[in-house]
Parts: sequence; structure tokens; C-alpha cells
Amino acid sequence: MNNKNFELLADYYEFTMAQTFYHNNQQDNIVYYDVFTRSHPDNNGYLIFNGLERVIKNILDFKFEKEHIDFLRKSGLKDEGFLQYLLDMKLELDIWAVPEGSVVFKNEPFLTIRGPIIQAQIIETLVLLSVNYSTLVTTKASRIVNAAQGKAIMEFGARRAQGYDASLEGARCAVIAGCIGTSNTLAGFEFDLPVSGTIAHSYVQMHDTEYEAFMNYAKVNPENCVLLVDTYNTLKSGMPNAIKVAKEYLIPNGYQLKAIRLDSGDLAYLSKKCRQMLDEAGLFDTLITASNSLNEYVISDLLNQDAKIDSFGVGENLITAKSDAVLGGVYKMVAIEKNDQIKPLIKVSESLEKITNPGYKKLYRVYDKDTQKAIADYIALHDEDVPTDSLYLFDELQPWKEKTVTNYYLKELQVPIFVKGKLVYDLPNQHQIKEYCKQELDSLWDEVKRMVNPHKYYVDLSPKLYELKQSLIQEHKEVTKKES
Amino acid sequence: MNNKNFELLADYYEFTMAQTFYHNNQQDNIVYYDVFTRSHPDNNGYLIFNGLERVIKNILDFKFEKEHIDFLRKSGLKDEGFLQYLLDMKLELDIWAVPEGSVVFKNEPFLTIRGPIIQAQIIETLVLLSVNYSTLVTTKASRIVNAAQGKAIMEFGARRAQGYDASLEGARCAVIAGCIGTSNTLAGFEFDLPVSGTIAHSYVQMHDTEYEAFMNYAKVNPENCVLLVDTYNTLKSGMPNAIKVAKEYLIPNGYQLKAIRLDSGDLAYLSKKCRQMLDEAGLFDTLITASNSLNEYVISDLLNQDAKIDSFGVGENLITAKSDAVLGGVYKMVAIEKNDQIKPLIKVSESLEKITNPGYKKLYRVYDKDTQKAIADYIALHDEDVPTDSLYLFDELQPWKEKTVTNYYLKELQVPIFVKGKLVYDLPNQHQIKEYCKQELDSLWDEVKRMVNPHKYYVDLSPKLYELKQSLIQEHKEVTKKES
Repeated sequence: MNNKNFELLADYYEFTMAQTFYHNNQQDNIVYYDVFTRSHPDNNGYLIFNGLERVIKNILDFKFEKEHIDFLRKSGLKDEGFLQYLLDMKLELDIWAVPEGSVVFKNEPFLTIRGPIIQAQIIETLVLLSVNYSTLVTTKASRIVNAAQGKAIMEFGARRAQGYDASLEGARCAVIAGCIGTSNTLAGFEFDLPVSGTIAHSYVQMHDTEYEAFMNYAKVNPENCVLLVDTYNTLKSGMPNAIKVAKEYLIPNGYQLKAIRLDSGDLAYLSKKCRQMLDEAGLFDTLITASNSLNEYVISDLLNQDAKIDSFGVGENLITAKSDAVLGGVYKMVAIEKNDQIKPLIKVSESLEKITNPGYKKLYRVYDKDTQKAIADYIALHDEDVPTDSLYLFDELQPWKEKTVTNYYLKELQVPIFVKGKLVYDLPNQHQIKEYCKQELDSLWDEVKRMVNPHKYYVDLSPKLYELKQSLIQEHKEVTKKES
Repeated sequence: MNNKNFELLADYYEFTMAQTFYHNNQQDNIVYYDVFTRSHPDNNGYLIFNGLERVIKNILDFKFEKEHIDFLRKSGLKDEGFLQYLLDMKLELDIWAVPEGSVVFKNEPFLTIRGPIIQAQIIETLVLLSVNYSTLVTTKASRIVNAAQGKAIMEFGARRAQGYDASLEGARCAVIAGCIGTSNTLAGFEFDLPVSGTIAHSYVQMHDTEYEAFMNYAKVNPENCVLLVDTYNTLKSGMPNAIKVAKEYLIPNGYQLKAIRLDSGDLAYLSKKCRQMLDEAGLFDTLITASNSLNEYVISDLLNQDAKIDSFGVGENLITAKSDAVLGGVYKMVAIEKNDQIKPLIKVSESLEKITNPGYKKLYRVYDKDTQKAIADYIALHDEDVPTDSLYLFDELQPWKEKTVTNYYLKELQVPIFVKGKLVYDLPNQHQIKEYCKQELDSLWDEVKRMVNPHKYYVDLSPKLYELKQSLIQEHKEVTKKES
């Protein structure tokens, strides 16, 4: 999707502000931004970060062309010096990020961006747009994969996605989260993902009989024969015809009926009946695949009812994350360099949970040495020494909730991606990201991965960061008074 | 977004079915598909069709390349004759559609596609993907514009859209539905839409004082000065500073403070207080613009409380249609040509409302001659003469609900787009589509446009189509019995 550059894919205020900075000769001021979210969609216990590759590509390709500048001039930006500055601009940012497929939590920075104010700010919309949907849909797909308790999930949502880009990126994210493949052929082509598909009801309808439809399909696709059995009557027509085709054609020719597919009706009841019919016909290896407005709750219920379903095709509920269709990632200024000093900034809100964590920081995960499971995350200032033998953890909103952990090790979660505009990160491919994502999920306790009311995973601040935050809140209060 | 072709953006089963058709020498069979939806998102009273331009571009660009064929071969398609057929394939379809910006309703075909089976079917996913999101978001934006009762709506959602494509197409659709502009600069560039923007909280935070931040901005953007007043304290700091900058700099230099923007707090209360402060300062022409998780319900409530807001910026709730994030457009085979006869097909479902309307049809809108308002839509078979002086209308699910209208005129809603693969339609630009959409909405009674519990607009079948449908349902019942 990235044949075209997206320099102008920015909220227009990025340009009006940038023009103001330029005019006031502030363009070389160095600032720090954190990218994070304040909640987890569907109240899931965790997020899976994704979309970094998209950020990287956009930053590598970032270059204003003359036609962009002409448009900006026409739109009302009048400072020719500024417009020339944009035309000449090369991004020379420092960017740190957690790798794609990382488990992350609200209020911790997926990405940190450092650089000259105009550069660092003009990419805000593009960075958020690049990571918000990818992280949303990867997290959603992970919920659905968890619900399936080891049964396979196929991504089937292309036709209902919110645009071409979402259909492709959604399929990529679904596979990273553990789906076994996608029906989206172009996504398979672009990202080297497994694709699969069966037949549609219209295919069956076009033929004079269901038997003829099945037999034609089996003859042309004997190695990969999945038959949709619910066009007329699943148990009285579809299943007998499918079994007949298996016995008359597939088995005698050395193939098997790979699967039957159910796309309507009571999937629990029908799957049990179909399993019984297949087993009675000796088709023990024929799988049962199901679709029809599935989501994590329906899948979980079906499995609780002992439905005999081996794989699920999930469409619109996955690709649009329909139940909670937005990840509210934000891009907040956390520090500014003045006279070679890093001055932390805070954004204060009436709502305690919306107050940002100030400063240039580092993000750590604390693992238990015995279980290798993640205990908590820990955010410290960038130049703090984090103790490695005994760590004091407390909840910043309820500081009386505290504990000291020992027998742990730390992992720094963000890695350098760009240094002064130069890419220093080896991009993993989809298979590597998928594997990394699996490792990340394995390091979480099952309680955090629960579909409903998951255990809260703590993201704690170092005492030093906590004190800084409190003092900046106090300072903000005084500035507000003074401004009033 | 269409620099790249999307031939492979198809659910994989399109290819496995197509291979089967080819193998059985059915590739020249002529079939008809209708595209329609079975519900209105948010239970809105109507839909606004959009995305036709995307369908057209994709069809004009449709051409398999060798690398696509190689991928299909690798994926498991083995009929070399079929793969060569795909490589040589040129789309020679007949396509009819309602124009972009048309008001449409559930169960009526936005598009009808006629042509050889492999061609007509292989574009299914791509056509649905092209129209589903565009129609969804145009309809959502229309709801929001209605709720604003003539106040302006700006589209602000780029960073929360589901991908790059959605951010651009969403902005285009928003403007078609009546939004006055977008913050998405690239959408402005690509589609010639008005763009606008103000400042961010971080911009204010970066400065030593709010006054300095405002003054710097006003000096650089005097013609278009919109100030965000809620960084510290709206009434005690933001407003006094904004008024000060207006009086000290803007007004003496022949400009005015264009607007102030509220992005937090109680917007009803604050907007009234801000209006009062502006008026007391003589800034009667300074507008008040508001944002912060707005949707149609919040906007309606604010206006009911007499909030003094002149324009609203709407983000994620518009661009993702968050409250109901999927339009379930479907692509259903409705007829097949056999021996030069058009044989209608039906898809029967357990649910009455899911049974398709069979056959090659025409779609009419019935207007009252006196009021010019739309009374009902009417679907007839393509070769029926629809009466022009007295029309019998009845509800197909409750046929005792009936009436006869006179004093009406008919408009055929679908127009030819492609004839044998040749584009015969002049594509309108965004401004023309926006104007057309406005006319369409003006032809609806207000009751149909109500936000909650809108009046049901009837889409009725001609008696002939109704009889055909009933007889095919009966026939299907018999086939099902026979297959059993």
C-alpha cells in the first residue's frame, strides 16, 4: 500500500503550528514525544503492539514534493521560508520502539520520538494512524485466538474491512496474533501468509444439484476439498452429498475430504451431528470448519458446549474489531531540551488517569527468575539506575498498594529504531514477528489473558519518576493560578 | 491509494470456484449479481451509497500480472489452462449502479453486475470492500450532520481511522455527506476538500506562557486564527489570553479572532460562558468550535441545552462509524442466462428477511408530484412496464398493508456504468457528488431522517416480482426435499 508517500497525511494543525515554530526560529528545538494509549479495547488484559514496519517505511519515504508545497501554499500557509524549509526537510529523528508483536499495556510508551520540533511533530498523525489500527486488530485477533483454545482461526473479513489498506494490514495482524491464515489472496501474496478458501452458496445454486456441484469441485480441487454443506439442508442433503462425493471420488483416487463447512444454523448442534455422520462413514480425518458472525464470545460458548468444530472463520468482528473499533493511541510531548538540559513536561487533566508520565524515560519488564513469567512493568527516567536485586513496586494511584520483589530480572522493552534519521533496526518478517508475539504471550500468566475481567497487570513508576510527576502537577497548578 | 492494482484482493474461494467453472467449461455462462445490504447501521432511516468511483477505478485497472499467476500456482491452483485464462482475462462486464451520493435502502441493489461467471464473481470481494466502508461512513457522517441542525461539522478522525485508505476515503465521504471540511491534509490535496486546523495542547505547553503561545500563533496565522483555550483553565486563563491577543494584535492589524476551540470539560456550560465573554469583549464574530469524543447524540444534546457552539470537530466516532462499525453489504447471484433466457435464482434462508429478491430487476423511486418528496421505492423485473398513473404498493412481509398511489412520478435509480467492459458513465467530482447527495436528502421527509426510531421507508416489490419470489421459494422447498 506504500507505493505512495504520505507526507501530507497529517492533521492540518501540524502545519499551522510548524509555520509558527519556524517563524519564531524554534525549528531546532529538540523535543520528546511518547506514543501510548490510555485503555485496552474490549477491556482486554493486554495489548499487542503492531504497525512499526509501517512507521519505518513512512519515515524512510518521507519527503515533501513541490506539488505538496503548492497545495500547502494554496491552503493558506504563507511563509515562503517555512515552505522552503519543508521542501528541504529530511527527517533526522531518534526513534525507540518496542518490537512488533510485543505485549504492552496502557500508559506505557510503545514509541518514543526525539528530534527537532517541526520534524517530530509533523509525523504525529501518520505515526498514530500507522500503529493504532494494527495494534487494535492484532489485540482483537489475539483475544479470538485465545477463545478458540487451540482450535484454528482463519481471517475471513476482507469484504467488510474499512478500506483496502485495512483488509491487508488486518490479515497480516491476524496471522501475527496466531490465526492460521487468511482468505485475502492479496494479503497472502504481499505478506507470505497462508491463504485458503472453499465455495460459496451461489456456487452450489448455479448447479442443477448439490451433488453435481460438490462432485465438480472435488474433481478440480481434490487435494484441498472443503465443501459447504448448508445450502439446502445440512443434515439431510449437504452431509449425505459430501460423504457420497468423498466415497465415490476422493477416497478411490487417493484423496480425502479435507473438511466440511457450516455457515448457518446452530453450529453446536449441527457440528456434533456432522461429526457423527462423518465418523459413521469412516471419514475420521475430515475436519469441520464453521463461520457466521463469529466472535470470541460465540467461539468460547460453542467450545463450552462441546461443539465439534476444528476451525473457525472469523470475518467482520475481527477485521474491524467491531465491538470496540478504535484504539485511542496518543502522541504526547513529554520533554523539551533547553540549554542541553532535558526539561520534562506534563499534560495535566481533570481525570487522574489522563495525566501523562513526564520526561524521557525507559521502560522495563520485570520477570520472575523461577517461572520466567512477567510480574510487572516498570517505567523509570532514562538516566536512572534500576536496582537489579530488590525492586520496590507501588501503584501510583493507590500508593499504599506496594510490594518489594526479589529473584527477578529486567528486560528493557524499547529498542533503537532510528538514530539521527538512520535506520538501525533489522526488520523482522511476518513469521518472526508471529513467533516473537507467541513468546511474549507465553510470558504472561493466564489470568492476564482471561477474556472477561482479566487480572490487572501493573505498570509502575520508579519512585524518582513518581516524585517528578507529583512535583510537575504541583507546578502546573501554580502556573494555572498565575495564568488566571 | 490506487497506484497499485487490486486483482488479488479477493477471497481465495473466488479462485478455487473459478478454476472449477473453467474446468467444466462454464466460464462463458452469463450470470447476474446484486449488491445490497440487509440492514442500516445505527438503525438509521436511510443509507447514502458511496464508493462507486473506487469500483470503477479497480475495474478499469483490473489485469492479472505474471507474478499474481505465479502466486496462485504456488498456492495450489494447478490448472494451467485456467491460470492462462486469468492472465489473458479482460473484464467485459455490464454494470449498473445508483450514482454516488444516492439515498438507498436495505434490500435494494446499489449495483447490478452482469457477465461471464468467472469475471463477475472474481470481483466480489473487491466490489464489496470498495462500497461497504464508503457507504457506511457517508451514512454515519450524514447522521452527524443532521444532528448538528445546520451547525458546521469538521472531520477530525485521521489518526484513529482503520488504516491510511480509510483515513482518506473517510474524509472524502464526510464532506460528501455535508461536513464542511477535514483536518486530513492529504485528503484535502487528493480530493480538493477544504482543510483546517488550529493548535494542540503541546503547542501551548512548549511556551513559557499561554499568552506568548497565543500571540506567536496569531502573528503567524492572523487570517485564520483559532485558539485552543483549555490547556490551563478555560475561563480564567485561556479566554482572557485569547481576548487579549485579539485586542492587542489581531484587531489593531485589521484581523479578527476567527474562533476559540474547546476540547475538554462541560462543553454546554463552557460554550455559554465563552460566548458571554466574547460578546462582552465585542468579539461578536468570533466563533466557538468544540471537540472531544463527539458523536450525533452528544451534539444533539449539546444543542438541546442551547450550547453556544458554531462548529463541531468529530473524530473517531465518524471515521470508524464506531457505534456500528460494519456495513454488511452482500453480493448475491440473482439470475443466470440459459439458452438466451434469464433464469432467476433465489437464496433461501430460515430468516424471512434474508431471502434474496430474485431476477434481473429495475429499481424505481416513486415521488409525489406535489411535494416532490419520495414516497417509496419500487423494485420490478427488468422487462416489466411499471404503471405511471396508478401504482399498487404493498409490504411483502405483511401484504395486507397496502395502498394505491396516484399523482406520482417515477425515477429509475440505477444508471449504466459499464457496457461490455466499456465505461459509459461520466464520473462526477466530489463537489457534484456532495450537491447530488444534498438533493437526495432534500427529497426525504424529515421523519425518515430522524436520529432515533426513524419512519420506515418502504421498498416494495412489483406484484410480478412478488409472485416470482413466492414461486421460487416454493420450488426451493421442493428441491430441498428432493436433495434430502
